[in-house]
Amino acid sequence: MSGPPPKGWQAIQDEVLRRIHARDWPPGHVIPGEVDLAREFGCARATVNRALRALAEAGLLERRRKAGTRVALHPVSRATVEIPVIRREIEDRGHAYGYSLLERSLAPPPAGPRATLGPGPALHLTALHSADGAPYVVEDRWISLSTVPAAHDAPFDRVSANEWLLAYAPFTHGDIAFSAEAASDSQAELLSTAPGTPVFAITRVTWDHTRAITVVRLIYAPGYSIHSVIGGMSADPRAAS
Amino acid sequence: MSGPPPKGWQAIQDEVLRRIHARDWPPGHVIPGEVDLAREFGCARATVNRALRALAEAGLLERRRKAGTRVALHPVSRATVEIPVIRREIEDRGHAYGYSLLERSLAPPPAGPRATLGPGPALHLTALHSADGAPYVVEDRWISLSTVPAAHDAPFDRVSANEWLLAYAPFTHGDIAFSAEAASDSQAELLSTAPGTPVFAITRVTWDHTRAITVVRLIYAPGYSIHSVIGGMSADPRAAS
Repeated sequence: MSGPPPKGWQAIQDEVLRRIHARDWPPGHVIPGEVDLAREFGCARATVNRALRALAEAGLLERRRKAGTRVALHPVSRATVEIPVIRREIEDRGHAYGYSLLERSLAPPPAGPRATLGPGPALHLTALHSADGAPYVVEDRWISLSTVPAAHDAPFDRVSANEWLLAYAPFTHGDIAFSAEAASDSQAELLSTAPGTPVFAITRVTWDHTRAITVVRLIYAPGYSIHSVIGGMSADPRAAS
Repeated sequence: MSGPPPKGWQAIQDEVLRRIHARDWPPGHVIPGEVDLAREFGCARATVNRALRALAEAGLLERRRKAGTRVALHPVSRATVEIPVIRREIEDRGHAYGYSLLERSLAPPPAGPRATLGPGPALHLTALHSADGAPYVVEDRWISLSTVPAAHDAPFDRVSANEWLLAYAPFTHGDIAFSAEAASDSQAELLSTAPGTPVFAITRVTWDHTRAITVVRLIYAPGYSIHSVIGGMSADPRAAS
Protein backbone atom coordinates (compact mmCIF):
# COMPACT_ATOMS: atom_id res chain seq x y z
CA MET A 1 0.00 0.00 0.00
CA SER A 2 1.00 3.57 -0.65
CA GLY A 3 -0.14 6.35 1.64
CA PRO A 4 -1.23 6.01 5.24
CA PRO A 5 -2.92 2.75 6.22
CA PRO A 6 -6.74 2.82 6.65
CA LYS A 7 -8.13 3.30 10.14
CA GLY A 8 -11.01 1.30 11.61
CA TRP A 9 -12.96 -1.61 10.19
CA GLN A 10 -15.03 0.50 7.79
CA ALA A 11 -11.93 2.01 6.21
CA ILE A 12 -10.47 -1.47 5.83
CA GLN A 13 -13.70 -2.66 4.27
CA ASP A 14 -13.54 0.24 1.82
CA GLU A 15 -9.98 -0.68 0.88
CA VAL A 16 -10.92 -4.35 0.37
CA LEU A 17 -13.86 -3.29 -1.79
CA ARG A 18 -11.55 -1.02 -3.77
CA ARG A 19 -9.11 -3.86 -4.44
CA ILE A 20 -11.94 -6.18 -5.56
CA HIS A 21 -13.31 -3.44 -7.76
CA ALA A 22 -9.92 -2.62 -9.27
CA ARG A 23 -9.32 -6.33 -9.84
CA ASP A 24 -6.14 -6.19 -7.77
CA TRP A 25 -8.04 -9.07 -6.25
CA PRO A 26 -9.97 -10.62 -9.15
CA PRO A 27 -12.85 -13.14 -8.81
CA GLY A 28 -11.53 -16.38 -7.32
CA HIS A 29 -8.42 -14.70 -5.90
CA VAL A 30 -7.45 -15.97 -2.45
CA ILE A 31 -6.85 -12.87 -0.36
CA PRO A 32 -4.18 -12.60 2.37
CA GLY A 33 -4.97 -14.03 5.78
CA GLU A 34 -6.25 -11.87 8.61
CA VAL A 35 -2.90 -11.81 10.37
CA ASP A 36 -1.15 -10.55 7.24
CA LEU A 37 -3.84 -7.95 6.57
CA ALA A 38 -3.72 -6.75 10.19
CA ARG A 39 0.03 -6.29 9.83
CA GLU A 40 -0.36 -4.42 6.54
CA PHE A 41 -3.09 -2.14 7.88
CA GLY A 42 -1.47 -1.69 11.29
CA CYS A 43 -4.56 -2.75 13.19
CA ALA A 44 -5.83 -5.56 15.36
CA ARG A 45 -6.77 -8.85 13.73
CA ALA A 46 -10.28 -8.45 15.16
CA THR A 47 -10.65 -5.24 13.17
CA VAL A 48 -9.81 -7.07 9.94
CA ASN A 49 -12.19 -9.84 10.89
CA ARG A 50 -14.97 -7.35 11.44
CA ALA A 51 -14.29 -5.74 8.04
CA LEU A 52 -14.29 -9.02 6.16
CA ARG A 53 -17.32 -10.47 7.91
CA ALA A 54 -19.86 -8.10 6.30
CA LEU A 55 -18.30 -8.66 2.89
CA ALA A 56 -18.59 -12.41 3.36
CA GLU A 57 -22.19 -12.09 4.54
CA ALA A 58 -22.94 -10.00 1.48
CA GLY A 59 -21.48 -12.73 -0.71
CA LEU A 60 -18.55 -10.72 -2.09
CA LEU A 61 -16.05 -12.90 -0.24
CA GLU A 62 -16.25 -16.63 0.31
CA ARG A 63 -14.64 -17.95 3.50
CA ARG A 64 -13.61 -21.57 3.21
CA ARG A 65 -12.50 -23.53 6.22
CA LYS A 66 -9.09 -24.64 5.01
CA ALA A 67 -8.56 -22.92 1.68
CA GLY A 68 -8.74 -19.37 2.99
CA THR A 69 -10.94 -16.47 1.94
CA ARG A 70 -11.43 -15.75 -1.73
CA VAL A 71 -13.23 -13.22 -3.87
CA ALA A 72 -16.59 -14.69 -4.86
CA LEU A 73 -17.00 -15.76 -8.45
CA HIS A 74 -20.72 -15.15 -8.90
CA PRO A 75 -22.61 -12.95 -6.48
CA VAL A 76 -26.12 -12.87 -7.87
CA SER A 77 -29.69 -12.33 -6.78
CA ARG A 78 -32.67 -14.07 -8.26
CA ALA A 79 -36.14 -12.92 -9.19
CA THR A 80 -38.91 -15.34 -10.00
CA VAL A 81 -41.11 -14.14 -12.82
CA GLU A 82 -44.55 -15.67 -13.20
CA ILE A 83 -45.78 -16.17 -16.74
CA PRO A 84 -49.49 -16.89 -16.82
CA VAL A 85 -51.55 -17.70 -19.87
CA ILE A 86 -52.31 -14.39 -21.61
CA ARG A 87 -56.06 -14.73 -21.13
CA ARG A 88 -55.58 -15.32 -17.43
CA GLU A 89 -53.16 -12.41 -17.07
CA ILE A 90 -55.69 -10.05 -18.62
CA GLU A 91 -58.56 -11.40 -16.55
CA ASP A 92 -56.48 -11.25 -13.37
CA ARG A 93 -55.99 -7.55 -14.04
CA GLY A 94 -59.75 -7.19 -14.09
CA HIS A 95 -60.20 -6.76 -17.83
CA ALA A 96 -62.41 -8.54 -20.35
CA TYR A 97 -60.33 -10.79 -22.57
CA GLY A 98 -60.54 -10.71 -26.35
CA TYR A 99 -58.75 -12.80 -28.95
CA SER A 100 -58.57 -12.61 -32.72
CA LEU A 101 -56.59 -14.74 -35.13
CA LEU A 102 -55.04 -12.55 -37.81
CA GLU A 103 -53.09 -15.04 -39.86
CA ARG A 104 -52.70 -18.80 -40.09
CA SER A 105 -50.38 -20.17 -42.75
CA LEU A 106 -47.85 -22.87 -43.54
CA ALA A 107 -44.45 -21.47 -44.47
CA PRO A 108 -40.72 -21.99 -44.07
CA PRO A 109 -39.79 -20.07 -40.93
CA PRO A 110 -37.47 -17.03 -41.13
CA ALA A 111 -33.93 -17.12 -39.75
CA GLY A 112 -34.67 -16.85 -36.02
CA PRO A 113 -37.29 -19.61 -35.69
CA ARG A 114 -35.59 -21.64 -38.45
CA ALA A 115 -32.49 -22.05 -36.27
CA THR A 116 -34.73 -23.78 -33.72
CA LEU A 117 -37.44 -25.44 -35.83
CA GLY A 118 -35.46 -26.37 -38.95
CA PRO A 119 -36.00 -25.30 -42.56
CA GLY A 120 -39.19 -27.27 -43.31
CA PRO A 121 -42.64 -25.64 -43.39
CA ALA A 122 -44.04 -24.77 -39.99
CA LEU A 123 -47.36 -23.34 -38.86
CA HIS A 124 -47.27 -19.57 -38.60
CA LEU A 125 -49.87 -17.81 -36.49
CA THR A 126 -50.39 -14.13 -35.83
CA ALA A 127 -52.97 -13.14 -33.28
CA LEU A 128 -54.03 -10.18 -31.21
CA HIS A 129 -55.06 -10.45 -27.57
CA SER A 130 -57.03 -7.54 -26.17
CA ALA A 131 -58.10 -6.22 -22.77
CA ASP A 132 -61.45 -4.41 -22.53
CA GLY A 133 -61.29 -4.06 -26.30
CA ALA A 134 -57.87 -2.35 -26.28
CA PRO A 135 -54.91 -4.12 -27.93
CA TYR A 136 -52.81 -5.88 -25.29
CA VAL A 137 -50.27 -8.08 -27.04
CA VAL A 138 -49.47 -9.30 -30.54
CA GLU A 139 -48.58 -13.00 -30.67
CA ASP A 140 -46.32 -14.05 -33.55
CA ARG A 141 -45.82 -17.79 -33.36
CA TRP A 142 -44.25 -20.67 -35.27
CA ILE A 143 -45.27 -24.23 -34.37
CA SER A 144 -43.34 -27.33 -35.40
CA LEU A 145 -45.71 -29.68 -37.21
CA SER A 146 -43.37 -32.62 -36.79
CA THR A 147 -43.42 -32.18 -33.00
CA VAL A 148 -47.11 -31.17 -32.86
CA PRO A 149 -48.90 -32.81 -35.83
CA ALA A 150 -52.31 -32.09 -34.26
CA ALA A 151 -51.70 -28.37 -34.85
CA HIS A 152 -52.20 -29.05 -38.56
CA ASP A 153 -55.93 -29.46 -37.99
CA ALA A 154 -56.44 -26.92 -35.22
CA PRO A 155 -58.10 -23.71 -36.43
CA PHE A 156 -56.85 -21.45 -33.57
CA ASP A 157 -59.71 -19.12 -34.39
CA ARG A 158 -61.38 -19.29 -31.00
CA VAL A 159 -58.76 -20.87 -28.70
CA SER A 160 -55.33 -19.27 -28.91
CA ALA A 161 -52.24 -21.40 -29.46
CA ASN A 162 -51.05 -19.98 -26.14
CA GLU A 163 -53.75 -22.08 -24.46
CA TRP A 164 -54.19 -24.87 -26.99
CA LEU A 165 -50.55 -25.93 -26.66
CA LEU A 166 -51.00 -26.24 -22.88
CA ALA A 167 -53.14 -29.26 -23.50
CA TYR A 168 -51.77 -30.65 -26.76
CA ALA A 169 -48.03 -30.11 -26.45
CA PRO A 170 -46.90 -29.69 -22.86
CA PHE A 171 -43.24 -28.75 -22.79
CA THR A 172 -40.37 -30.07 -20.74
CA HIS A 173 -38.26 -26.91 -20.74
CA GLY A 174 -37.88 -23.57 -22.41
CA ASP A 175 -35.84 -20.44 -22.95
CA ILE A 176 -37.24 -16.98 -22.45
CA ALA A 177 -35.86 -13.53 -23.20
CA PHE A 178 -37.14 -10.07 -22.31
CA SER A 179 -36.17 -7.09 -24.44
CA ALA A 180 -37.19 -3.61 -25.58
CA GLU A 181 -38.00 -3.22 -29.27
CA ALA A 182 -39.21 -0.55 -31.64
CA ALA A 183 -42.70 -1.39 -32.88
CA SER A 184 -42.67 -2.28 -36.56
CA ASP A 185 -45.23 -0.71 -38.88
CA SER A 186 -47.55 -3.70 -38.66
CA GLN A 187 -47.10 -4.13 -34.90
CA ALA A 188 -47.73 -0.44 -34.36
CA GLU A 189 -50.95 -0.58 -36.37
CA LEU A 190 -52.20 -3.57 -34.38
CA LEU A 191 -51.25 -1.98 -31.08
CA SER A 192 -52.75 1.42 -31.98
CA THR A 193 -49.45 3.20 -31.59
CA ALA A 194 -46.84 4.86 -33.79
CA PRO A 195 -44.13 2.89 -35.60
CA GLY A 196 -40.89 2.99 -33.62
CA THR A 197 -42.65 3.27 -30.27
CA PRO A 198 -40.77 1.33 -27.55
CA VAL A 199 -42.55 -1.95 -26.81
CA PHE A 200 -41.77 -4.75 -24.40
CA ALA A 201 -41.04 -8.06 -26.11
CA ILE A 202 -40.91 -11.63 -24.84
CA THR A 203 -39.31 -14.30 -27.00
CA ARG A 204 -39.94 -17.86 -25.86
CA VAL A 205 -38.83 -21.22 -27.19
CA THR A 206 -40.21 -24.43 -25.68
CA TRP A 207 -39.13 -28.01 -26.11
CA ASP A 208 -40.58 -31.44 -25.54
CA HIS A 209 -37.37 -33.14 -24.45
CA THR A 210 -35.17 -32.66 -27.54
CA ARG A 211 -37.85 -31.58 -30.00
CA ALA A 212 -38.73 -27.91 -30.36
CA ILE A 213 -42.46 -27.25 -30.02
CA THR A 214 -42.86 -23.58 -30.72
CA VAL A 215 -41.10 -20.24 -31.02
CA VAL A 216 -43.22 -17.27 -30.04
CA ARG A 217 -42.67 -13.54 -29.93
CA LEU A 218 -45.03 -11.49 -27.82
CA ILE A 219 -45.05 -7.75 -28.51
CA TYR A 220 -46.92 -5.86 -25.81
CA ALA A 221 -48.75 -2.58 -26.09
CA PRO A 222 -46.80 0.46 -24.80
CA GLY A 223 -46.66 0.76 -21.03
CA TYR A 224 -46.49 -2.96 -20.30
CA SER A 225 -44.14 -4.09 -17.55
CA ILE A 226 -43.36 -7.27 -15.69
CA HIS A 227 -43.22 -7.21 -11.91
CA SER A 228 -41.54 -9.63 -9.59
CA VAL A 229 -40.16 -9.93 -6.11
CA ILE A 230 -36.60 -10.65 -5.10
CA GLY A 231 -35.69 -12.53 -2.02
CA GLY A 232 -33.12 -11.02 0.22
CA MET A 233 -30.31 -11.97 2.51
CA SER A 234 -32.03 -14.80 4.24
CA ALA A 235 -32.70 -16.70 1.03
CA ASP A 236 -29.60 -15.70 -0.92
CA PRO A 237 -26.93 -13.54 0.64
CA ARG A 238 -25.34 -12.60 -2.68
CA ALA A 239 -27.99 -10.25 -3.97
CA ALA A 240 -27.38 -7.14 -6.06
CA SER A 241 -28.59 -3.86 -4.62
CA MET B 1 -75.18 -28.40 -26.66
CA SER B 2 -76.45 -27.43 -30.07
CA GLY B 3 -75.37 -29.29 -33.21
CA PRO B 4 -74.03 -32.82 -33.37
CA PRO B 5 -72.03 -34.00 -30.36
CA PRO B 6 -68.22 -34.18 -30.69
CA LYS B 7 -66.67 -37.54 -31.64
CA GLY B 8 -63.56 -39.00 -30.02
CA TRP B 9 -61.52 -37.76 -27.05
CA GLN B 10 -59.72 -35.01 -29.00
CA ALA B 11 -63.00 -33.48 -30.15
CA ILE B 12 -64.27 -33.58 -26.58
CA GLN B 13 -61.06 -31.94 -25.40
CA ASP B 14 -61.57 -29.21 -28.01
CA GLU B 15 -65.09 -28.62 -26.77
CA VAL B 16 -63.96 -28.44 -23.14
CA LEU B 17 -61.22 -25.97 -24.10
CA ARG B 18 -63.80 -23.93 -26.01
CA ARG B 19 -66.09 -23.76 -22.97
CA ILE B 20 -63.19 -22.70 -20.71
CA HIS B 21 -62.14 -20.12 -23.23
CA ALA B 22 -65.66 -18.78 -23.71
CA ARG B 23 -66.05 -18.65 -19.92
CA ASP B 24 -69.09 -20.90 -20.13
CA TRP B 25 -66.93 -22.61 -17.55
CA PRO B 26 -65.08 -19.75 -15.79
CA PRO B 27 -62.06 -20.14 -13.48
CA GLY B 28 -63.09 -22.06 -10.35
CA HIS B 29 -66.19 -23.52 -12.03
CA VAL B 30 -66.85 -27.15 -11.08
CA ILE B 31 -67.52 -28.93 -14.35
CA PRO B 32 -70.03 -31.78 -14.78
CA GLY B 33 -68.94 -35.27 -13.78
CA GLU B 34 -67.61 -37.75 -16.32
CA VAL B 35 -70.85 -39.73 -16.38
CA ASP B 36 -72.86 -36.61 -17.20
CA LEU B 37 -70.41 -35.47 -19.85
CA ALA B 38 -70.37 -38.94 -21.42
CA ARG B 39 -74.14 -38.79 -21.64
CA GLU B 40 -74.08 -35.30 -23.15
CA PHE B 41 -71.44 -36.24 -25.71
CA GLY B 42 -72.88 -39.67 -26.45
CA CYS B 43 -69.60 -41.47 -25.79
CA ALA B 44 -68.02 -43.83 -23.28
CA ARG B 45 -66.99 -42.49 -19.88
CA ALA B 46 -63.43 -43.62 -20.64
CA THR B 47 -63.38 -41.27 -23.63
CA VAL B 48 -64.30 -38.32 -21.42
CA ASN B 49 -61.69 -39.39 -18.89
CA ARG B 50 -59.04 -39.46 -21.61
CA ALA B 51 -60.03 -35.98 -22.79
CA LEU B 52 -59.93 -34.44 -19.31
CA ARG B 53 -56.71 -36.13 -18.25
CA ALA B 54 -54.44 -34.10 -20.57
CA LEU B 55 -56.17 -30.88 -19.54
CA ALA B 56 -55.61 -31.73 -15.89
CA GLU B 57 -51.98 -32.61 -16.54
CA ALA B 58 -51.56 -29.28 -18.32
CA GLY B 59 -53.00 -27.52 -15.30
CA LEU B 60 -56.14 -26.14 -16.96
CA LEU B 61 -58.33 -28.39 -14.85
CA GLU B 62 -57.86 -29.32 -11.22
CA ARG B 63 -59.19 -32.73 -10.18
CA ARG B 64 -60.01 -32.93 -6.50
CA ARG B 65 -60.79 -36.19 -4.84
CA LYS B 66 -64.19 -35.38 -3.41
CA ALA B 67 -65.05 -31.93 -4.72
CA GLY B 68 -65.00 -32.84 -8.41
CA THR B 69 -63.07 -31.31 -11.28
CA ARG B 70 -62.85 -27.54 -11.61
CA VAL B 71 -61.37 -25.03 -13.99
CA ALA B 72 -57.99 -23.97 -12.60
CA LEU B 73 -57.73 -20.50 -11.15
CA HIS B 74 -54.12 -19.71 -11.93
CA PRO B 75 -52.24 -21.75 -14.51
CA VAL B 76 -48.83 -20.15 -14.61
CA SER B 77 -45.25 -20.96 -15.47
CA ARG B 78 -42.25 -19.51 -13.73
CA ALA B 79 -38.93 -18.23 -14.98
CA THR B 80 -36.07 -17.52 -12.65
CA VAL B 81 -34.11 -14.44 -13.62
CA GLU B 82 -30.60 -14.02 -12.25
CA ILE B 83 -29.54 -10.49 -11.41
CA PRO B 84 -25.81 -10.26 -10.89
CA VAL B 85 -23.87 -7.21 -9.83
CA ILE B 86 -23.42 -5.05 -12.95
CA ARG B 87 -19.63 -5.33 -12.88
CA ARG B 88 -19.87 -9.10 -12.71
CA GLU B 89 -22.43 -9.28 -15.50
CA ILE B 90 -20.15 -7.29 -17.80
CA GLU B 91 -17.09 -9.33 -16.87
CA ASP B 92 -19.00 -12.60 -17.27
CA ARG B 93 -19.76 -11.53 -20.84
CA GLY B 94 -16.04 -11.20 -21.41
CA HIS B 95 -15.81 -7.41 -21.39
CA ALA B 96 -13.65 -4.98 -19.46
CA TYR B 97 -15.71 -3.16 -16.85
CA GLY B 98 -15.70 0.59 -16.48
CA TYR B 99 -17.50 2.83 -14.01
CA SER B 100 -17.92 6.57 -13.72
CA LEU B 101 -19.90 8.59 -11.24
CA LEU B 102 -21.74 11.41 -13.00
CA GLU B 103 -23.62 13.05 -10.17
CA ARG B 104 -23.79 12.81 -6.40
CA SER B 105 -26.17 15.13 -4.58
CA LEU B 106 -28.56 15.45 -1.68
CA ALA B 107 -32.09 16.31 -2.76
CA PRO B 108 -35.76 15.61 -2.09
CA PRO B 109 -36.64 12.64 -4.31
CA PRO B 110 -39.14 13.04 -7.17
CA ALA B 111 -42.58 11.45 -7.04
CA GLY B 112 -41.65 7.80 -7.79
CA PRO B 113 -38.84 7.36 -5.25
CA ARG B 114 -40.56 9.74 -2.82
CA ALA B 115 -43.49 7.34 -2.48
CA THR B 116 -41.02 4.77 -1.20
CA LEU B 117 -38.34 6.85 0.53
CA GLY B 118 -40.43 9.67 1.93
CA PRO B 119 -40.15 13.43 1.28
CA GLY B 120 -36.89 14.12 3.14
CA PRO B 121 -33.59 14.65 1.35
CA ALA B 122 -32.04 11.45 -0.01
CA LEU B 123 -28.76 10.71 -1.73
CA HIS B 124 -29.08 10.88 -5.50
CA LEU B 125 -26.47 9.15 -7.65
CA THR B 126 -26.16 8.96 -11.39
CA ALA B 127 -23.49 6.70 -12.82
CA LEU B 128 -22.50 5.06 -16.07
CA HIS B 129 -21.26 1.48 -16.30
CA SER B 130 -19.40 0.56 -19.47
CA ALA B 131 -18.23 -2.59 -21.22
CA ASP B 132 -15.01 -2.40 -23.23
CA GLY B 133 -15.39 1.36 -23.13
CA ALA B 134 -18.90 1.33 -24.63
CA PRO B 135 -21.83 2.56 -22.52
CA TYR B 136 -23.67 -0.39 -20.97
CA VAL B 137 -26.15 0.93 -18.43
CA VAL B 138 -27.07 4.21 -16.76
CA GLU B 139 -27.73 3.86 -13.03
CA ASP B 140 -30.09 6.45 -11.52
CA ARG B 141 -30.35 5.80 -7.81
CA TRP B 142 -31.82 7.26 -4.63
CA ILE B 143 -30.53 6.02 -1.28
CA SER B 144 -32.32 6.57 2.03
CA LEU B 145 -29.91 8.25 4.44
CA SER B 146 -32.03 7.33 7.44
CA THR B 147 -31.78 3.64 6.55
CA VAL B 148 -28.17 3.86 5.34
CA PRO B 149 -26.45 6.73 7.20
CA ALA B 150 -23.01 5.45 6.10
CA ALA B 151 -23.88 6.42 2.52
CA HIS B 152 -23.55 10.06 3.61
CA ASP B 153 -19.78 9.69 3.75
CA ALA B 154 -19.27 7.27 0.86
CA PRO B 155 -17.89 8.96 -2.26
CA PHE B 156 -19.12 6.29 -4.76
CA ASP B 157 -16.47 7.58 -7.15
CA ARG B 158 -14.61 4.29 -7.49
CA VAL B 159 -16.96 1.67 -6.05
CA SER B 160 -20.51 1.81 -7.41
CA ALA B 161 -23.48 1.93 -5.06
CA ASN B 162 -24.58 -1.27 -6.77
CA GLU B 163 -21.65 -3.00 -5.05
CA TRP B 164 -21.18 -0.80 -2.02
CA LEU B 165 -24.71 -1.47 -0.78
CA LEU B 166 -24.02 -5.21 -0.95
CA ALA B 167 -21.72 -4.80 1.99
CA TYR B 168 -23.21 -1.82 3.82
CA ALA B 169 -26.95 -2.30 3.45
CA PRO B 170 -27.90 -5.89 2.66
CA PHE B 171 -31.61 -6.10 1.92
CA THR B 172 -34.24 -8.49 3.14
CA HIS B 173 -36.56 -8.25 0.14
CA GLY B 174 -37.26 -6.23 -2.95
CA ASP B 175 -39.52 -5.48 -5.87
CA ILE B 176 -38.32 -5.46 -9.44
CA ALA B 177 -39.95 -4.41 -12.69
CA PHE B 178 -38.85 -4.81 -16.30
CA SER B 179 -40.11 -2.42 -18.95
CA ALA B 180 -39.39 -0.84 -22.32
CA GLU B 181 -38.81 2.90 -22.31
CA ALA B 182 -37.92 5.65 -24.75
CA ALA B 183 -34.45 7.00 -23.97
CA SER B 184 -34.63 10.55 -22.64
CA ASP B 185 -32.30 13.19 -24.07
CA SER B 186 -29.79 12.78 -21.26
CA GLN B 187 -30.00 8.97 -21.25
CA ALA B 188 -29.58 8.90 -25.01
CA GLU B 189 -26.49 11.07 -24.81
CA LEU B 190 -24.91 8.85 -22.15
CA LEU B 191 -25.79 5.68 -24.07
CA SER B 192 -24.56 7.07 -27.42
CA THR B 193 -27.94 6.67 -29.04
CA ALA B 194 -30.76 8.89 -30.29
CA PRO B 195 -33.45 10.29 -27.98
CA GLY B 196 -36.57 8.12 -28.12
CA THR B 197 -34.64 4.94 -28.89
CA PRO B 198 -36.24 1.90 -27.17
CA VAL B 199 -34.22 0.91 -24.13
CA PHE B 200 -34.68 -1.85 -21.58
CA ALA B 201 -35.30 -0.59 -18.06
CA ILE B 202 -35.14 -2.25 -14.66
CA THR B 203 -36.67 -0.52 -11.66
CA ARG B 204 -35.76 -2.02 -8.32
CA VAL B 205 -36.73 -1.15 -4.76
CA THR B 206 -35.08 -2.92 -1.83
CA TRP B 207 -35.94 -2.98 1.84
CA ASP B 208 -34.24 -3.85 5.08
CA HIS B 209 -37.26 -5.34 6.79
CA THR B 210 -39.66 -2.39 6.83
CA ARG B 211 -37.18 0.34 5.91
CA ALA B 212 -36.59 1.20 2.26
CA ILE B 213 -32.90 1.19 1.36
CA THR B 214 -32.76 2.32 -2.21
CA VAL B 215 -34.75 2.90 -5.39
CA VAL B 216 -32.77 2.40 -8.57
CA ARG B 217 -33.55 2.68 -12.26
CA LEU B 218 -31.20 0.98 -14.68
CA ILE B 219 -31.47 2.11 -18.30
CA TYR B 220 -29.57 -0.25 -20.59
CA ALA B 221 -27.97 0.52 -23.93
CA PRO B 222 -30.04 -0.52 -26.97
CA GLY B 223 -29.98 -4.25 -27.71
CA TYR B 224 -29.87 -5.40 -24.11
CA SER B 225 -31.99 -8.41 -23.19
CA ILE B 226 -32.46 -10.67 -20.20
CA HIS B 227 -32.38 -14.41 -20.70
CA SER B 228 -33.77 -17.10 -18.49
CA VAL B 229 -34.93 -20.68 -18.53
CA ILE B 230 -38.38 -21.97 -17.73
CA GLY B 231 -39.00 -25.31 -16.16
CA GLY B 232 -41.50 -27.56 -17.83
CA MET B 233 -44.08 -30.12 -16.99
CA SER B 234 -42.04 -32.03 -14.49
CA ALA B 235 -41.48 -29.02 -12.26
CA ASP B 236 -44.71 -27.14 -12.87
CA PRO B 237 -47.43 -28.61 -15.05
CA ARG B 238 -49.26 -25.32 -15.45
CA ALA B 239 -46.83 -23.58 -17.77
CA ALA B 240 -47.79 -21.19 -20.56
CA SER B 241 -46.70 -22.17 -24.06
